Amino acid sequence: MQSFIEVSKESHFPIQNLPFGVFSTADKTSPRVGVAIGQEIVDMSVIQDSGLLSDVSGLQNGVFEQPSLNAFMGLGKPVWTATRRALQTLLSASESRLRDDASLRQRAFVAQKDAKMHLPIAIGDYTDFYCSKEHATNVGIMFRGKDNALQPNWLHIPVGYHGRASSIVPSGTPIRRPCGQRLPGKDQPPIFSKCAKLDYELEMGWVVGTGNELGTSITTADAKEHIFGMVMLNDWSARDIQAWEYVPLGPFLGKNFGTTISNWIVTLDALEPFLVDGPAQEPTPLKYLQESSKSAYDINLEVSLKHSQASSFETIAKSNLKYMYWSITQQLAHHTVNGCNMRVGDLGGTGTISGPTKESFGSLLELTWNGTEDVPLKDGTTRKFLEDGDTLNMTGYCESSEGWRIGFGECVGTILPANI
Amino acid sequence: MQSFIEVSKESHFPIQNLPFGVFSTADKTSPRVGVAIGQEIVDMSVIQDSGLLSDVSGLQNGVFEQPSLNAFMGLGKPVWTATRRALQTLLSASESRLRDDASLRQRAFVAQKDAKMHLPIAIGDYTDFYCSKEHATNVGIMFRGKDNALQPNWLHIPVGYHGRASSIVPSGTPIRRPCGQRLPGKDQPPIFSKCAKLDYELEMGWVVGTGNELGTSITTADAKEHIFGMVMLNDWSARDIQAWEYVPLGPFLGKNFGTTISNWIVTLDALEPFLVDGPAQEPTPLKYLQESSKSAYDINLEVSLKHSQASSFETIAKSNLKYMYWSITQQLAHHTVNGCNMRVGDLGGTGTISGPTKESFGSLLELTWNGTEDVPLKDGTTRKFLEDGDTLNMTGYCESSEGWRIGFGECVGTILPANI
Repeated sequence: MQSFIEVSKESHFPIQNLPFGVFSTADKTSPRVGVAIGQEIVDMSVIQDSGLLSDVSGLQNGVFEQPSLNAFMGLGKPVWTATRRALQTLLSASESRLRDDASLRQRAFVAQKDAKMHLPIAIGDYTDFYCSKEHATNVGIMFRGKDNALQPNWLHIPVGYHGRASSIVPSGTPIRRPCGQRLPGKDQPPIFSKCAKLDYELEMGWVVGTGNELGTSITTADAKEHIFGMVMLNDWSARDIQAWEYVPLGPFLGKNFGTTISNWIVTLDALEPFLVDGPAQEPTPLKYLQESSKSAYDINLEVSLKHSQASSFETIAKSNLKYMYWSITQQLAHHTVNGCNMRVGDLGGTGTISGPTKESFGSLLELTWNGTEDVPLKDGTTRKFLEDGDTLNMTGYCESSEGWRIGFGECVGTILPANI
Repeated sequence: MQSFIEVSKESHFPIQNLPFGVFSTADKTSPRVGVAIGQEIVDMSVIQDSGLLSDVSGLQNGVFEQPSLNAFMGLGKPVWTATRRALQTLLSASESRLRDDASLRQRAFVAQKDAKMHLPIAIGDYTDFYCSKEHATNVGIMFRGKDNALQPNWLHIPVGYHGRASSIVPSGTPIRRPCGQRLPGKDQPPIFSKCAKLDYELEMGWVVGTGNELGTSITTADAKEHIFGMVMLNDWSARDIQAWEYVPLGPFLGKNFGTTISNWIVTLDALEPFLVDGPAQEPTPLKYLQESSKSAYDINLEVSLKHSQASSFETIAKSNLKYMYWSITQQLAHHTVNGCNMRVGDLGGTGTISGPTKESFGSLLELTWNGTEDVPLKDGTTRKFLEDGDTLNMTGYCESSEGWRIGFGECVGTILPANI
């Protein structure tokens, strides 16, 4: 399938993708829903107003003229799927209705470079999981030694904890280095200072499109009907603040100063061709966590860094979502098995996605083994943790056998100096 | 000060209180803002429409004709204070404008027994703290022994963790006993079952009325300007699920199946006469946690239980907010010191408020020493943990030297059997 819109081979946004986001423009500053194709954004509110989506059953008027995707997502999976299919048809090279309507094209397309992107969802609750066995093992070895690397519950539970929704920001938002309490050394009292061990975590996020009532659950079999799509996610982490605060109730100020997500949500429909078998799970999970169909995704992941004096990004890690032990459907089933309710726009994070080899580790904590080794950069400088002015990017894409890519665009943030 | 509305001596809602809530009625089902006095609710939207609040500077039209207090709270502390003062004047016995307007009184007052109460705030993020030294010590002794009862960070940090906003419900909402993974015994693999150790936690909550921008902080000195008021809060807890899941990232499914708050928010203005000195803090906290004015509140707290066969509630614990080690202003300052942003409607929980004596312990976990002792009830039955059909109530009130009370009303929930 090809579009009449030109799409380069390396683009994350061919007609096979069609990810959703929220954007505004200089001449129309109200944020609204758009879909990325090539280097363009399709203004979905214009397309809907033109009547070209009138065949999509259940698609209510006005859902795209909104500052978040929540209203559209709340309509449910059949509407998501039908809308994307209808748009795919409209954008295909062989279809004349949009292609040959110069006036409509003028109104319906906005160059991505001319748009301002906004947080695509109004996030109610954000939960972060800890679902990469390699990551949990690395962290366990570092802090508890090889023999007790994985906690006793890890192979039974997709371990997760509640995160902070207010500080989730769209790609491109700068991140202020946090201040807080940390221990300056062994047997010394805590001090208040700026974070000295600022890190990223390579994660992906899943967006709840439709929820469940309090007191009910979502099964692994139904989970894909509730998840609208996925994003790239950078769980910025202040390792020194976290280390001092997190026993016994978990990470708090070490995390909640900022979390970056990509501007584009790639639908599970677009990712479906890239479903693969995940890692074997041994011991067999309890019944409510078992799955009857594939639930891992083959998504190539990359972390790249550009420091304030550098002219370009360089890749410092490569991983893949398929390494993750607990699937996103298991995460959602576990989250609701006690009756916890999900709402439209809730966000789940996978936890750091590390792979089996060192170059696939998803954090500086792991790449530098808690600051005991250096990550070398091309120009001879090195990193143990992030420095002010560093810009991080996280990208992810699936690659088809024909060579086109389903990608997430950028997930970028630059470190600003602490307010101290 | 006295009102022309009759208020009994034991009432939580004299003219000195005037707590805010959201209610609806059979003849007008749209939820709207009300203020409790005696056994009545003042419909604030009617009072505003009548023009009797037109002198309140900055009070925008329509803020009370809303399903939450967020719009009103967003106007800021000077407006909260001026509105409450204006209402206090209108309701006073010596003031004729409302007292003598029979038609307006007919429209403006609704009997509490005829109203349905709703969650008073749209909660963005919910954070639960762990700020009672007695509670943390009790739990520490139970699980780690007397010598390591308090974690090394506890006397330096108001320890907190992110909770779940979606499952916060107003007083009166039944709570479904959760299911989940737990260990059936030592050295046995986990099973999936209904919770066998269902508990409550006696807490209070503080409501963020105005927030801060990401990357900025709220000082202890400014915190009272940002906190609109307080509620009673029951942090329902599944002890067996929590025990298995919570290392290393904190409580998750053991907590997020439900949290109950009182229907009425008592303003900090109303609580101000009951400010007292809190416990001495040793070691001296780091500077950003130090305070220059009183920040503990003398609020009597009671937990009462009524089982399904009982005809009335009986008190099983009595505590007081003044026992709490870290104040609510320290909690808010700590939460934002790393730049984490608060939004209108965010909720903070204090953590279980236990006092120095056994009868003041704020959970069954402590009262029964993790199920090793019984809590005796009047009719000869006992409790180790909560049973299906049990109804819990948490009340709190300040008592003035003249005998009137500033209270929070009920914070009630009944346990429904598990869906299993």
